[in-house]
Amino acid sequence: MPENSASAADRLHAVLTTLRASMADQISTAPSVREEHSHGEAMTAARLPEAVIFAESTQDVSTVLSACHAHRVPVVAFGAGTSIEGHVVPPEHAISLDLSRMTDILAVNAEDLDCRVQAGLTRQSLNAQIRDTGLFFPVDPGGEATLGGMCATRASGTAAVRYGTMKENVLGLTVVLATGEIIRTGGRVRKSSTGYDLTSLFIGSEGTLGVITEVQLRLHGRPETLSAAVCQFENLHDAVQTVMEIIQCGIPVNRVELMDPVQMQASIQFSKLEGYRALTTLFFEFAGAPAAVQEQVSATEALAEPNNGLGFAWAESAEDRSRLWKARHDAFWAAKALAPQARVISTDCIVPISRLGTLIDGVYQDIKASGLRAPLLGHVGDGNFHTLIITEDTPEGHAQAWELDKKIVARALALEGSCSGEHGVGMGKLDFLETEHGAGALSVMRALKNTMDPHHILNPGKLLPAGPAYTG
Amino acid sequence: MPENSASAADRLHAVLTTLRASMADQISTAPSVREEHSHGEAMTAARLPEAVIFAESTQDVSTVLSACHAHRVPVVAFGAGTSIEGHVVPPEHAISLDLSRMTDILAVNAEDLDCRVQAGLTRQSLNAQIRDTGLFFPVDPGGEATLGGMCATRASGTAAVRYGTMKENVLGLTVVLATGEIIRTGGRVRKSSTGYDLTSLFIGSEGTLGVITEVQLRLHGRPETLSAAVCQFENLHDAVQTVMEIIQCGIPVNRVELMDPVQMQASIQFSKLEGYRALTTLFFEFAGAPAAVQEQVSATEALAEPNNGLGFAWAESAEDRSRLWKARHDAFWAAKALAPQARVISTDCIVPISRLGTLIDGVYQDIKASGLRAPLLGHVGDGNFHTLIITEDTPEGHAQAWELDKKIVARALALEGSCSGEHGVGMGKLDFLETEHGAGALSVMRALKNTMDPHHILNPGKLLPAGPAYTG
Repeated sequence: MPENSASAADRLHAVLTTLRASMADQISTAPSVREEHSHGEAMTAARLPEAVIFAESTQDVSTVLSACHAHRVPVVAFGAGTSIEGHVVPPEHAISLDLSRMTDILAVNAEDLDCRVQAGLTRQSLNAQIRDTGLFFPVDPGGEATLGGMCATRASGTAAVRYGTMKENVLGLTVVLATGEIIRTGGRVRKSSTGYDLTSLFIGSEGTLGVITEVQLRLHGRPETLSAAVCQFENLHDAVQTVMEIIQCGIPVNRVELMDPVQMQASIQFSKLEGYRALTTLFFEFAGAPAAVQEQVSATEALAEPNNGLGFAWAESAEDRSRLWKARHDAFWAAKALAPQARVISTDCIVPISRLGTLIDGVYQDIKASGLRAPLLGHVGDGNFHTLIITEDTPEGHAQAWELDKKIVARALALEGSCSGEHGVGMGKLDFLETEHGAGALSVMRALKNTMDPHHILNPGKLLPAGPAYTG
Repeated sequence: MPENSASAADRLHAVLTTLRASMADQISTAPSVREEHSHGEAMTAARLPEAVIFAESTQDVSTVLSACHAHRVPVVAFGAGTSIEGHVVPPEHAISLDLSRMTDILAVNAEDLDCRVQAGLTRQSLNAQIRDTGLFFPVDPGGEATLGGMCATRASGTAAVRYGTMKENVLGLTVVLATGEIIRTGGRVRKSSTGYDLTSLFIGSEGTLGVITEVQLRLHGRPETLSAAVCQFENLHDAVQTVMEIIQCGIPVNRVELMDPVQMQASIQFSKLEGYRALTTLFFEFAGAPAAVQEQVSATEALAEPNNGLGFAWAESAEDRSRLWKARHDAFWAAKALAPQARVISTDCIVPISRLGTLIDGVYQDIKASGLRAPLLGHVGDGNFHTLIITEDTPEGHAQAWELDKKIVARALALEGSCSGEHGVGMGKLDFLETEHGAGALSVMRALKNTMDPHHILNPGKLLPAGPAYTG
């Protein structure tokens, strides 16, 4: 809790009084608006903000943080509300600062393959608006997230195996600091060796070091040719081995996704996938110039065959491709359809790919012991996977899922993995950070937090578990 | 200067007395050793360290920093001494901490395309030792630098257009903090969304936040096919336009380097390049599977032709390819050979590629006005270029070159560029940081420095110009 002799209610009142002078019509305390800002897509641990403020400019964000800083009122930034680890759940007595009205594209530099956007823009909207340039922004976490939120959680998704994550695709930022001061980080150049990499410090900082208001993004040319295929395997290890060899050979697959037999069964039913069996399945997408794509395809087929791949089914038309990838993107809903009254909780681990088979073997034991159903799927080219734990939507059911998740994470960490490949820490992964990073690295992270936000008004309680800070 | 009531000499004496207890044979105060550690490859502003300590382990580095921290003695890490912006020049009354004996390869995980090495290993040595795995580390700054030094300066080079810089190719680090505490950052996974990106904070920090002792690197498969070619142009803008279109089309060139007519003239003479004229020249390398390479080649030729490219000369044999790229890597020596008694000073700017033609036009005016010769070459795919200013090796000559460099940097910054694409800040670029990053971002960098190294014992005077720090 921020220190201040006044009560939380008085401090909040002081902030809102200050802000009403200049932005009264951007402040809401309506119950429905507060409810909407009380959670992300993980409903657990929802909490109402005291007020919601809709920022329309970087200056607005600065005005709000300046007031919150002066009166020690906590503030959490809110974009599309698609977070699934509780990042956007307000702390106690907090303001939710909604950036979803900040959707301008500020510049598109087609010649340099970059653009600058406001943080509240979604990637879908960006891609729709720049379609006629022949360029696109590739990072695709699945949901309709804002680009600011994707920065804050270091998001990635199915295209990361080819294009990297937000870390590799953001050139610079505008950030409002805890005091309300506005800074710019990075710039437009492809690379630079000057100064500390502040851009990377804010990417993945989950609103705890500053609020991102503008993003300079790398764009990429739309590939000339796209090709998609599915290959099934009787044995999980054969599928993983195939992917490992593809990556080792440097075949630049555009996407490669794995679904396990349980997930395939669900997706066959939900997405009406015809001609597939409930087996371990790899979904491939190849992209590039025509001969290169053909060569990638041949090389991939040649690697799958000795690994007991059961042949490739090609999606020839754009329509077929789209149906196939829609099935992949609808995996969550397919799992959900297995038990409509139940809750589906997504885990998110990553390991070096050579450990993935061992890990999943262990995960299957854990799932079996839990008595729960949990389809498994993932961004296998990165070693990143999710299980979709299907559990009763009750405290007991949630606890049961949480127990299973903890076991899965423990296995991943024991195999030199990370407790989150792409969802972030929020509140959901706090317990694992010390095992993953060690006490020393965490103490440095806390020192950075204390430096950037000494009064802990920026999304307190997220990303960092309590503990000592490095003091130099 | 670090605060402490004892004199600098007494403090240094205290440190050396402490260290002699456990590592006496790793300490040298021999004049020749001190001289060797008084400078990098930029001879300007050399200064002798009081002593040189040769670390043989992370624990050694910790022991040294712990003693230096206790007695407030400044310390500068030293690798291969190839820095060209004065990074390794010792501060006053300082110890030079040499890591060049730390050359072990600690692990190679061929299946996961990663390895862990000690910071004193050079990339050439790493690549020689892992050759039989079929893998290699691609970042190639030209010189025989250590991998720790390449991390500290966020190095890149000719292969960055395809593989990225150190930022994109380091997965994790072991770092010794100012207190001597040892932390690990990052890990082995391809991506992670957990916690602040400490790895990126240390990459490019030039030894001012901690001393890097181990590096977890991404490796890449050696490409199946390599192909190299040269294309000449009467007009610089045509060459730049060609490269811009190549990048826009997403042709994954392995390298694309530019030499201007002055540099070509020098290189033709020095490297005995036959059949070329002293014109603006692009050096290309293509890599990958055979059909993909052939397709890249055809597409590149098709783009060069309407931009008035004067045809492609192909280096068919490995020997020819090697000679061609050796000529590129020897560009500095070719410039030097133009005036053997003179000094050659390399500038290092980067701009968005669409600004490169405009920038170079301006640079030519500045060179002409200066009366100096200055061949120009660069990593044109990234918008990064160097001029090799040939000047008298006298204070007046250096001042003249510095005046020219300042003009070039000012032009780059006015075009949304950076004052260093890959060499770093050191002492040479300090004056430009505020213009490039703004006072706000610099104040945050200073706050981070104060947090990590409150007594300023870690390479003080480098990377950050003096000024106020953000205080939250």
